[in-house]
Amino acid sequence: MKIVLIGYGNVGWHLSRFLKPVCEELMVVTSKPNDKDDFFFSDTIPENADFYIITRQEKFVSDTSKKIKTNNGIVVHTSGTLPAEVLNKHRHYGVLYPFQTFRKGRPLSVPFINFAIEANDQFTINQLTNLCDSIHQNYYLVTQNQRIALHVTGVLSSNFPNFLYVISYDILEKYNLHYEILKPLIKETIERLDYFHPADVQTGPAIRNDSEIIAKHLELLKKDLPIGADIYEVISKAIIKYYLNEKL
Amino acid sequence: MKIVLIGYGNVGWHLSRFLKPVCEELMVVTSKPNDKDDFFFSDTIPENADFYIITRQEKFVSDTSKKIKTNNGIVVHTSGTLPAEVLNKHRHYGVLYPFQTFRKGRPLSVPFINFAIEANDQFTINQLTNLCDSIHQNYYLVTQNQRIALHVTGVLSSNFPNFLYVISYDILEKYNLHYEILKPLIKETIERLDYFHPADVQTGPAIRNDSEIIAKHLELLKKDLPIGADIYEVISKAIIKYYLNEKL
Repeated sequence: MKIVLIGYGNVGWHLSRFLKPVCEELMVVTSKPNDKDDFFFSDTIPENADFYIITRQEKFVSDTSKKIKTNNGIVVHTSGTLPAEVLNKHRHYGVLYPFQTFRKGRPLSVPFINFAIEANDQFTINQLTNLCDSIHQNYYLVTQNQRIALHVTGVLSSNFPNFLYVISYDILEKYNLHYEILKPLIKETIERLDYFHPADVQTGPAIRNDSEIIAKHLELLKKDLPIGADIYEVISKAIIKYYLNEKL
Repeated sequence: MKIVLIGYGNVGWHLSRFLKPVCEELMVVTSKPNDKDDFFFSDTIPENADFYIITRQEKFVSDTSKKIKTNNGIVVHTSGTLPAEVLNKHRHYGVLYPFQTFRKGRPLSVPFINFAIEANDQFTINQLTNLCDSIHQNYYLVTQNQRIALHVTGVLSSNFPNFLYVISYDILEKYNLHYEILKPLIKETIERLDYFHPADVQTGPAIRNDSEIIAKHLELLKKDLPIGADIYEVISKAIIKYYLNEKL
């Protein structure tokens, strides 16, 4: 099996580590090769591979696709939002969307990735699911709408919490408190997901509709970190509304 | 050492488990004792204990304090926002604020708690820090403003992310996707905190100021979960602003 991996950013770096042990030949197309990495690097796209995996940014995917010359090779991108059809000049095309946050140079802490798979024909689906099996990773067949929904939840449950940690670290710094104090709380919040639905373990002043504490918090944020005050207000209102209307 | 623990909700339940092994006598004051738990339960407050720990809701703390009869006993509450001074009818008073999210009936997954400590005199500080040492838990001496700041970051980095998971679970359910797909992503996001400052690993469409993807996400949220659209918009704007003004 010959695989061409196009792009060597956060996603490309991680996929290369998964794919290298399972394919006869792995070629990495990038203008920024890393000498320390034991790959066949190229700045042009080789012809006639079995798989072309485009990990470049969304805006470059369509152009990259046009430069790929293959008859029966499978061409996929790894985006959570881009339609598969941007690749439809090829016979076999699809999406191999890794639902994970990657950091180039840092192996994942979790044991596996969930891939969302879309494809234009059964042959391509079989090839993509086989590929996931061979690298011992999970996959889910999805529609385009399901993939976009998944991508939204990725933003809500990874990018946004991370930004809330950024703000929290900033506040602690302003008050000469070390961010390490936060970690047991953050970790416990996550561990509970193994035992409870998050809707059943929501805590904090908003779910108690405790307007006095909310006002105290907003006062501090407006003074120390106004960017956090808007977020605090909107999420608190949403929690109050959500639990009044739908739950409890 | 005689300890009276007043209130047997989420905080009281957990503190009782920490304190029982280290004190001669632990009395739990509650109108809702649990027969299965091996404690001395009472619905009135015993006199002349060494410690009185009020874990009741903020609005009941002042009234509860007035019912405590002690000469040299230390009286503390466990609130993140209430001033220590609501207890100032007592000679020795302070705050023992456990910076953690608790769920009655469920032991913590994390190995320790960070307590924030305030007190009106050195004797009380010494007694409270000794108590934390004896139950093998961390503590930090704080001012009232530091404690409120800590409490705000608790909301931002625990209550709010939990609510973002609630919304994410809801969206996945609407699209017939199982919430288990989310967990490796959520866990990896947290694990990265052991290696990076969150400001250095922020990802997602907002930090790239990718207005096309943001618009796609907002379209989906407005249709499927309008309560999430407001949150999405405010946090995305904050991320864009934060990284334009202050970082990168």
